[in-house]
Amino acid sequence: MKKGIGNMTRVEVLFLGTTASIPTPKRNHPAIYFRYVGKHEYCMLFDCGEGTQRQIFLAKENFMKLNEIFITHWHADHYAGLLGLIETMSLEKRSSPLHVFAPEATRFLNTLLSVGYGIRKFQVIAHDVPFKGKEVTKILEKEEYEIFSIPVKHGIPAVAYCFKEKDRVKIDKAKAKALGLPSQSVLYKKLKKEGRVEYKGRLVKLEDVSYIEAGKKVVYSGDTEACDNLIKLATNADLLILDCTYFEDVKERNHLNVYEAIEIASQANVKKLVLTHISRRYQDEREIERVVRELAKNFDFDVIIAKDFMRIELK
Amino acid sequence: MKKGIGNMTRVEVLFLGTTASIPTPKRNHPAIYFRYVGKHEYCMLFDCGEGTQRQIFLAKENFMKLNEIFITHWHADHYAGLLGLIETMSLEKRSSPLHVFAPEATRFLNTLLSVGYGIRKFQVIAHDVPFKGKEVTKILEKEEYEIFSIPVKHGIPAVAYCFKEKDRVKIDKAKAKALGLPSQSVLYKKLKKEGRVEYKGRLVKLEDVSYIEAGKKVVYSGDTEACDNLIKLATNADLLILDCTYFEDVKERNHLNVYEAIEIASQANVKKLVLTHISRRYQDEREIERVVRELAKNFDFDVIIAKDFMRIELK
Repeated sequence: MKKGIGNMTRVEVLFLGTTASIPTPKRNHPAIYFRYVGKHEYCMLFDCGEGTQRQIFLAKENFMKLNEIFITHWHADHYAGLLGLIETMSLEKRSSPLHVFAPEATRFLNTLLSVGYGIRKFQVIAHDVPFKGKEVTKILEKEEYEIFSIPVKHGIPAVAYCFKEKDRVKIDKAKAKALGLPSQSVLYKKLKKEGRVEYKGRLVKLEDVSYIEAGKKVVYSGDTEACDNLIKLATNADLLILDCTYFEDVKERNHLNVYEAIEIASQANVKKLVLTHISRRYQDEREIERVVRELAKNFDFDVIIAKDFMRIELK
Repeated sequence: MKKGIGNMTRVEVLFLGTTASIPTPKRNHPAIYFRYVGKHEYCMLFDCGEGTQRQIFLAKENFMKLNEIFITHWHADHYAGLLGLIETMSLEKRSSPLHVFAPEATRFLNTLLSVGYGIRKFQVIAHDVPFKGKEVTKILEKEEYEIFSIPVKHGIPAVAYCFKEKDRVKIDKAKAKALGLPSQSVLYKKLKKEGRVEYKGRLVKLEDVSYIEAGKKVVYSGDTEACDNLIKLATNADLLILDCTYFEDVKERNHLNVYEAIEIASQANVKKLVLTHISRRYQDEREIERVVRELAKNFDFDVIIAKDFMRIELK
């Protein structure tokens, strides 16, 4: 995979499964293959429904690059692919640790992995994610990004996740030039590092020539009904991926319908909304596309219905 | 599904997954959907690799008809589909019990089902299958068939299974007629039930006018290396389904290669051999077909390479 070019960074979201609970010929169980390309490349998985390892093969991606898996909740359609994926990683001679984040990860992951006679030659490390309260929790920090979670409402412990690329301090070249600082990377680096730089006897301060470039933000709800926590986590997201089990005004506890999903996206002021976890009752794709097109007219963000193997790129 | 017509009975074997360990675009994890149609229809599953529920959908079969699942051993590629299948059965409102047979079934099945928040509204009953020794064990008996098992060699507890339609006592109509007994079902039934029948003053004994029609026999090895137990269980089978991980002379402990598989079938005097559990290293189907065609020339039974969604019918 190509690394980011210059200061360009990239997020790729690949939908491996987009059905709700029960698979259909076109939609497998939930899983999202997530790639971030900054200075380095990072791959992670959000949810891991049954058949995820084969979907990764079919998408011509590499599951050996995955270092973190984030499970939203312990319903089988969201985690049943863990067993086989971990087993296959072992057969493929993985040696580096795999980190699995979930509410009650320690409890359930260790039980799951105690079944049968798998030979695991690498560590699978469970990380418990808080599933009560109203706070956003930072559950992982890397050099270039952070992962946050918040509890959502699904009748059982469940969370939503947020990938957040770190904000970057950028130099406004025109401003810098106006203050006598030429565009040289050694000078820019020093300025960013030390907050000031001297050039030909003139002192240039970072705050006078810089601005903040907000990092990309992607939020994935997992299964949930509407709740304030979700809006809080999703606020100003570049991409919000929501449970949208129903494309009618079905009020089911524990899940969202399309009206609720769009309302949440609107309140959270997101740029793009992807609807996934789609009930098998919607076999006619054109019909749900029509419903969404009608609704989306009233909002100024994109609304997309997820399909298996669909990719969305943020640059 | 149609019931058996008259005295005709039918066995259908549907291969849902035919890969070894790691899935490929064309081959999913091991599972066999097995249907027997006698007086009634019975459906069962042999092994249940990841993605089996979706393969059943794709094959347009009905997993709600399954009453028994037979797991050969606890490597994930042979059982990881249980979780999702059982969950989906529950979502589909199954109420009748499901019987799962396996070596150490109680230990592992109950642990597996303790993971997560599945809502099971039906009983899942674990049946422990013996995995030591040299004896064939009858593990299930129904009105029209029996299931047997025998331990095989795979480095961990593992068994092979045998489906055996019960032998039937049939009346030789010509012989019966010669002894003065007309072809009337009420007389035939009485003769079969009581061993004798009187008609117009003449006594006709069952042994004088009957013969035994052997029931159909199908044996599935699961993963194993060559062993006498397997030959014992497979003797005179109409259909033998074998682990054939390699189509070269690879001597790997725990698995069979094509030479060993054909030798076992020959020694067991089977009518038809199906090779499955095929390593992903064989992407060129024509090449392995060529190998098998060459070898099969020397034997008087059919040899078939399994493919996903292949069906074999025995009448």
